Amino acid sequence: MNNFEFSLPTKIHFGKGKINQIGDYIKTNGTRVLIHYGSERIKKSGLFEIVVESMKNQGINFFELGGVEPNPLLSKSKEGIDICRSNKIDFILAIGGGSVIDSAKTISLGIPYDRDVWDFFINKATPKSAIPIGVILTIPATASETNSTAVITNEAIHSKRHIKNDLLKPVFAIMDPELTFSVPPYQTAAGCIDIMAHVWERYFVDQPQSYLLDKMFEAVLKTIIQYAPIALREPKNYKARSEIMWASSIAHNDMLGSVGDFACHGIGLQLSALYNVTHGASLAIAIIAWAKYVYKHDINRFCKFAESIWGIEQNNMDPELTACQGIKATEDFFNSLNIPTKLSEAGISSDQIELMAEKAVDNGLGYLGLGFVRLYKEDLIEIYKLAY
Amino acid sequence: MNNFEFSLPTKIHFGKGKINQIGDYIKTNGTRVLIHYGSERIKKSGLFEIVVESMKNQGINFFELGGVEPNPLLSKSKEGIDICRSNKIDFILAIGGGSVIDSAKTISLGIPYDRDVWDFFINKATPKSAIPIGVILTIPATASETNSTAVITNEAIHSKRHIKNDLLKPVFAIMDPELTFSVPPYQTAAGCIDIMAHVWERYFVDQPQSYLLDKMFEAVLKTIIQYAPIALREPKNYKARSEIMWASSIAHNDMLGSVGDFACHGIGLQLSALYNVTHGASLAIAIIAWAKYVYKHDINRFCKFAESIWGIEQNNMDPELTACQGIKATEDFFNSLNIPTKLSEAGISSDQIELMAEKAVDNGLGYLGLGFVRLYKEDLIEIYKLAY
Repeated sequence: MNNFEFSLPTKIHFGKGKINQIGDYIKTNGTRVLIHYGSERIKKSGLFEIVVESMKNQGINFFELGGVEPNPLLSKSKEGIDICRSNKIDFILAIGGGSVIDSAKTISLGIPYDRDVWDFFINKATPKSAIPIGVILTIPATASETNSTAVITNEAIHSKRHIKNDLLKPVFAIMDPELTFSVPPYQTAAGCIDIMAHVWERYFVDQPQSYLLDKMFEAVLKTIIQYAPIALREPKNYKARSEIMWASSIAHNDMLGSVGDFACHGIGLQLSALYNVTHGASLAIAIIAWAKYVYKHDINRFCKFAESIWGIEQNNMDPELTACQGIKATEDFFNSLNIPTKLSEAGISSDQIELMAEKAVDNGLGYLGLGFVRLYKEDLIEIYKLAY
Repeated sequence: MNNFEFSLPTKIHFGKGKINQIGDYIKTNGTRVLIHYGSERIKKSGLFEIVVESMKNQGINFFELGGVEPNPLLSKSKEGIDICRSNKIDFILAIGGGSVIDSAKTISLGIPYDRDVWDFFINKATPKSAIPIGVILTIPATASETNSTAVITNEAIHSKRHIKNDLLKPVFAIMDPELTFSVPPYQTAAGCIDIMAHVWERYFVDQPQSYLLDKMFEAVLKTIIQYAPIALREPKNYKARSEIMWASSIAHNDMLGSVGDFACHGIGLQLSALYNVTHGASLAIAIIAWAKYVYKHDINRFCKFAESIWGIEQNNMDPELTACQGIKATEDFFNSLNIPTKLSEAGISSDQIELMAEKAVDNGLGYLGLGFVRLYKEDLIEIYKLAY
């Protein structure tokens, strides 16, 4: 087993009805709160009203900033930083999924920093402090509600970058599965693929593997495979929504280790940054193309995946066949959730391949792949071609 | 899935060589430290010296109190409280397994409390503060290094009680598997059974079950079944020791939920409190006898256990047979680790049964079993009889 560091200071309040105590959870952390959110859906659904009432009962002042979009923009976070400074905000409440939470995290870093918050995303500076944030999770996918990561898009230069820092772990996360009943099928499916991708990135790494972690990876993957279709068919199925919600946090808050390859995230990132493809959908495309390109690096590992996740019987005469069948089963599963696995289906023309490959390795390292196969621009061109 | 609350603020430093930074980890938390430990083994092994050197390099003052025994005694903790008060200790470093950590936790609660620390264990008072503690784990079993629980024996009245409070979560835990190479076979085996017991208590509860948690329970149980025999055969097998060590924390720090039945712990507790049977060994006896008494409450659940953990094919004509085969397989496994599953083998005579049953329900509730079958004194007499 690899060495690791782990802590999860975020207080998780998981389950039905937890939303009703929101005022209590906030009052020990702040008195002047920015409520940060995405679409107006939270007002139509009544969620916003519940939150505001609970805060008013605790005498908490609040300001609001909505309009965070998928693949959240630096400009929106900067708008938030200005509002927070002007109004002496001491706590940020993010209501939403990964995009809103990451935007809130960016604001929380920017408030006490007197230069450009983007500095933190390009390793030009290291954060020293941040305003505390809390989360009401409405779309389970990125695990941002319990992890130390934020991803933001600097739209001026078409660049999507991430930061990882313990200061970014929220002080609390309300994970009430009923709040996800209204997530539309496409976002539900994309979120589920994101969850699987977080495990995938950790599963396909070089030695040493861990027996325990492998079994836990399988636990998360099988949970999504079991419950994503149910959540699509029956959006108000509490069991399905709760299994997916807890799986999402476990998959990417380093409880299952922080060592991963993350090439697929790098490949998908370009589809989001350049063409605004939903994060989870971009990962479906990236995972399948990547797997087709790299599986020969460790055929046994791909065979194990095929067997333990998809129940595909190991073909000892032709392990390559087993490996490819596992990849195909994964692709079929993504498609069964109505998520395309081809760039062409996402409306991206093939003359963009070189640009995407170039941007993908423009990450300060010059390559993708931290733990399995190192991929340079030429490799990425081949991978993007495989995605057609 | 059940509602739950979860956080894990303890900073876990897991892996080979982590022990060498101990001074760094302490210095941000305290400057006058009590080193609390069990046997002199840590001095012979050189571990104590490494710790002391690292602390000296950081200018940290230290005092020491060894001699904590398995089933740690209240009197020892009180001795620690006196030493800490006299020497203005601001941090406690526990070097050991669950017993030492629980003794340290008891000291940490007692220092700022001006009455008898036992009050907290009999619900006569609720702790308001505690001195921070850190852990160097040398025996993986109880998960006390990352959880909020302490168990202590008040030897004056032969009573073993527990407390659960977030104040008791250590600020850091060094989990270096190499430190467990020297754990003797009996303690290794007893620790592994304790780990399995923590999952067992959570597995056999009434609805609602969680698909994800079931898979994670299986992950932990199968890890122990796979690696306990290896650790006994090859004490210096790093992989085996590391898998067991991480499994131990996961099993009982509420990462897999806090809802459990805990009747087996209550049954085993009497064997430890009255006859000083090692905690893990007492659980082997308790689990098997308990299972034989209650399995009819949910035969399907016991069949699922038999099938998924032991690979026993479900006998649809006779599910009771499958259930009993699963219990038998568990008993055989415990015995294969040289841990007895009979009271007679532990040298406890049958005329003690009534006393044990009486003590077992003298827990403020009047019964055992929080989530599966509620057991009163008469039930416990039958269960202890089944243990002969």
